[in-house]
Amino acid sequence: MMKGCQNDCAAGCTGAAAKHVTESFKAADLVINPATTLKEKPDPNGLVFGTVFTDNMLFVEWSLASGWDTPHIKPLENLSLHPAISALHYAVELFEGMKAYRGEDGKIRLFRPSLNMDRMLRSAVRATLPAFDKEELLECIRKLVEVEKEWVPYSTSASLYIRPTLIGTEPSLGVKKPSKAILYVILSPVGPYFSSGTFNPISLWADPKYVRAWKGGTGDCKLGGNYGSSIYAQREAMELGCQQVLWLYGDEHQITEVGTMNLFLYWQNENGEEELATPPLDGIILPGVTRQSILDLARMWGEFKVSERYITMSELKTALKENRMKEMFGAGTACVVCPISTILYLGENLHIPTMENGPQIATRFLNQLSDIQYGREESEWTVVVS
Amino acid sequence: MMKGCQNDCAAGCTGAAAKHVTESFKAADLVINPATTLKEKPDPNGLVFGTVFTDNMLFVEWSLASGWDTPHIKPLENLSLHPAISALHYAVELFEGMKAYRGEDGKIRLFRPSLNMDRMLRSAVRATLPAFDKEELLECIRKLVEVEKEWVPYSTSASLYIRPTLIGTEPSLGVKKPSKAILYVILSPVGPYFSSGTFNPISLWADPKYVRAWKGGTGDCKLGGNYGSSIYAQREAMELGCQQVLWLYGDEHQITEVGTMNLFLYWQNENGEEELATPPLDGIILPGVTRQSILDLARMWGEFKVSERYITMSELKTALKENRMKEMFGAGTACVVCPISTILYLGENLHIPTMENGPQIATRFLNQLSDIQYGREESEWTVVVS
Repeated sequence: MMKGCQNDCAAGCTGAAAKHVTESFKAADLVINPATTLKEKPDPNGLVFGTVFTDNMLFVEWSLASGWDTPHIKPLENLSLHPAISALHYAVELFEGMKAYRGEDGKIRLFRPSLNMDRMLRSAVRATLPAFDKEELLECIRKLVEVEKEWVPYSTSASLYIRPTLIGTEPSLGVKKPSKAILYVILSPVGPYFSSGTFNPISLWADPKYVRAWKGGTGDCKLGGNYGSSIYAQREAMELGCQQVLWLYGDEHQITEVGTMNLFLYWQNENGEEELATPPLDGIILPGVTRQSILDLARMWGEFKVSERYITMSELKTALKENRMKEMFGAGTACVVCPISTILYLGENLHIPTMENGPQIATRFLNQLSDIQYGREESEWTVVVS
Repeated sequence: MMKGCQNDCAAGCTGAAAKHVTESFKAADLVINPATTLKEKPDPNGLVFGTVFTDNMLFVEWSLASGWDTPHIKPLENLSLHPAISALHYAVELFEGMKAYRGEDGKIRLFRPSLNMDRMLRSAVRATLPAFDKEELLECIRKLVEVEKEWVPYSTSASLYIRPTLIGTEPSLGVKKPSKAILYVILSPVGPYFSSGTFNPISLWADPKYVRAWKGGTGDCKLGGNYGSSIYAQREAMELGCQQVLWLYGDEHQITEVGTMNLFLYWQNENGEEELATPPLDGIILPGVTRQSILDLARMWGEFKVSERYITMSELKTALKENRMKEMFGAGTACVVCPISTILYLGENLHIPTMENGPQIATRFLNQLSDIQYGREESEWTVVVS
């Protein structure tokens, strides 16, 4: 018997024990004890992303023995965590990123939140963290936003960022599926991404020496380990005068993502077709909600070819040389779309004519998505909070 | 101006601010306030790895503004952490693993601890966590073990596991170098890995669909993200009746590591030479202290070829077919060496004749390393704690 084995049997034996445990928390069981002393709400125009938090949080504990505990909405406070928990040693942790928007009609909306719930559950499976009922979590989040509704900025260029988090909290150093976990959701008001109200294009650094994600890894899930490991490269990009990393993959230098965003090209492709292209979901790409929404909108428009395909740096350089490149932009919850103007690649500064071309397509996506998010356009993609 | 940019300038501007901050904590400044109520020490033979902790911990805080704070030895207690810290969201975290051994002469020894300190500092740089003076940290750890010396098992088959940890604690959701961090060290008495006193060989599952680490990633550093992402594959291995994962890499199915251990082969190689081989430190292999020590011992012995080289599953299968394979074993701090008896690979169960061959070489490494660790053999590799 290997008594010191790091992968003890308890990790695998959930079958029998799971019979009587709570399979998911229920929104109907929510215990709501909100803060009585409230913080002052900040001016959303002066906010640095993710630094100011609202008064309350959603908090739910899980254990292998008892399943999910009752969900609580309670004052935001520090977590009391044993120093040996697996989230702090082995990154047994995941998160989501979504927003609540205050529309021009005064209603507060979430944007395609079920896509976030779907991805969060996939991340939980991959991280060996406990599963939950997606509808119940979404309803708990809706209730939390309702409690904190005065924190949703009265502005159609700001919003309330929602950060669901799930961490392994078993106080043990074995590398194994945790027998304890905490799911919590915190909220942070965020200002306009482009404060001037107009696009500011970003410069990228593309170097094959750092690789964000790889086949057989976790790049298609929103696990903590994918992000912390990217900061070192991000700093090198900044030292070289660039703002973000363009992540490459493989010997052909496929373009994959930019910083923490998905990536889109709008160009005339090698066959002379007008095309919107983004890398396919082959395991190394995060399935972004904004990415999916841009693809869905473009397919609804039906005006040009829409492709999920591989694109290499060499193909990109050829398109630039032949004046076929029109726009290139990142896509994510924070900025919706983020135009790209230059790429520093193997010592060469490649100019991308995104701004010279409007950016026409990027602006159109931004406008339609904002119209939906702020309720100027009716859409099934939004869920009204209150 | 992108005010909402996730990589704000503060992260990069350490130059001027760093002038007056403390570059490292000093062991001479240690404030020692140990626990007054002591826990009962457990029987080391009944311990599950990493579940019982000693009474005290080392605790040092860092901030970008003030540098390192005074180091403390204080009662082990829960950490009070803001729910937005980067360790919990982006796995800005690293750890080390080492042991203190109580020798037959009554002295307590550490084994090559400076190799752990070197690796920890490399991990800190990669994780964009603060640097420290390795000698000072080692001396703080030595003092902690001295305070907790009664927790070092009175046994030459058990030891006190030492877990240095460094986590990013800035309460902000930006993906960036943290402006706050905590370094802490906790201790856990651990029992004999092989409780019967004899080897129990393990079975491995090798499937190219999961990849532990890749070029351009963080597999050569001891970052949390490398470990949590491995648990899912480990569970699949167990479902298939295997005990650990044999991690493969690339189209050629190179063998890289096993579970959380380095990997060694002892065989007659393709040129008919007796050879001890382990994969080279090319970026995807953790530079293990036991790995290095086995290589160093084998080179000192000078009795056979010692190689850091690539080995593919195809080469391994050929060697098995030609009866050239003698022993295969994992190597790590937990078990020293861990013999391997079978590999389930592409539906085929490969039998490795490790046990039939003694395992002669694995046992010799185990014995000499144990002799050094428990003070039966004089060595410059040990540091006496007290």
